Amino acid sequence: MARYRIKLAYDGTEFHGSQIQPGLRTVQGEAERALKKLAGQHQSILFAGRTDAGVHASGQVISFELDWNHPEEDLQKAFNALLPRDVSALEVAETGEDFHPRFDARFRRYSYSLRVNEHRDPLQNRYCWRVWPPLSLPRLEKASQCLLGLHDFGAFGSPHQPGGCTVRKIELADWKQTDERYQFELTGNAFLYHMVRHIVIILVKIGQKKEDPTLISKFLREPEGPPAQGLAPARGLQLAEVVY
Amino acid sequence: MARYRIKLAYDGTEFHGSQIQPGLRTVQGEAERALKKLAGQHQSILFAGRTDAGVHASGQVISFELDWNHPEEDLQKAFNALLPRDVSALEVAETGEDFHPRFDARFRRYSYSLRVNEHRDPLQNRYCWRVWPPLSLPRLEKASQCLLGLHDFGAFGSPHQPGGCTVRKIELADWKQTDERYQFELTGNAFLYHMVRHIVIILVKIGQKKEDPTLISKFLREPEGPPAQGLAPARGLQLAEVVY
Repeated sequence: MARYRIKLAYDGTEFHGSQIQPGLRTVQGEAERALKKLAGQHQSILFAGRTDAGVHASGQVISFELDWNHPEEDLQKAFNALLPRDVSALEVAETGEDFHPRFDARFRRYSYSLRVNEHRDPLQNRYCWRVWPPLSLPRLEKASQCLLGLHDFGAFGSPHQPGGCTVRKIELADWKQTDERYQFELTGNAFLYHMVRHIVIILVKIGQKKEDPTLISKFLREPEGPPAQGLAPARGLQLAEVVY
Repeated sequence: MARYRIKLAYDGTEFHGSQIQPGLRTVQGEAERALKKLAGQHQSILFAGRTDAGVHASGQVISFELDWNHPEEDLQKAFNALLPRDVSALEVAETGEDFHPRFDARFRRYSYSLRVNEHRDPLQNRYCWRVWPPLSLPRLEKASQCLLGLHDFGAFGSPHQPGGCTVRKIELADWKQTDERYQFELTGNAFLYHMVRHIVIILVKIGQKKEDPTLISKFLREPEGPPAQGLAPARGLQLAEVVY
């Protein structure tokens, strides 16, 4: 038996999230079903991070053990042939037997895509959130800088275990703009449940001048206060990279 | 009554093509259903070009008559509110009563997107065709130049009316490449049924060195001979622009 590390991409639209749930179509469920055909028996798959229903991934990392006596390249082909069309192994490599994609991860990078337009465009709807009125990039950038560093993000989401720690460290919070497309890149050591989508909806309100840029700092100073309201839609969000 | 000209975008994945067909979900069917709610009665919609099942549009042009006593901007909003999520009016303008989106069109521009990679990527599957082995851009460009000008394209597709003329004029046949993405832009006065997809599959075979670059010229010299085999998948194709 060897342990493998796989970089996984998926279109989250037709999944009830990454984590296995009885009776629902999930990424883990489909991946374990494919792996069972390779392994001849059930093998659990470990994930670097959970993604919600509708959230996409271009750099999720998973890991499993398998008896495989051929090149890694062949494992990638065989696994992809068994996975449904909306999931794909982008890279496959053998790794140490102790590797754990969640516990060994140093950083996660999420990417959120927005389109600033009054009218919907069906060809740009699946992987971004359309917002209107327009966004002020300087306001977005200013407010995002408050996220950097070690903070208690308790107002922006809940820990995966009840009562768990809500302190996280954000390394990077950058905006890129090209015409009507705005992309927000957020890198941190770990993320609370719904944290990126809570942050994005507040940043959008700040960018649209409906909220003051200081609102982010206020939430960081008062993590026990009333939590941030609303969630940016799942479809704009992508787990882009996990760094080890 | 005034006549309106609308630039329409749609994601073709869940449509049985643009043209109305009884019992099937088509772009025209959905657009006429939405228009009926605005007009209070059935109004026919004219299309600049037909697109096959699965083919997308970012610049289809349609036209209809309507009694509308408000600004064009409001018509766009009202029409979009009634259209399904995978169709959208990008622009709406009043036009002359004689305007016909098909007969008045001077050029159509189609765009075909390819991704050159051995492995599928579910986030890049909906709007492009993945091909492997790699493509030689110089071979693609050389072969594409043979398409320019006035030719009998009878080997590349069939006319919309049986026995109709198969001579078309191609103005532009350009490739753009960025990393693994290849985009083919083809502009012509009009196109035969399946013509772009027939051309693309032959160009891909030429680019992969499975066919000689002279094959395009051979088909143009022998339009009555055996027709081109195979079709590039619909999902890579987009009707990008109609010029008047």
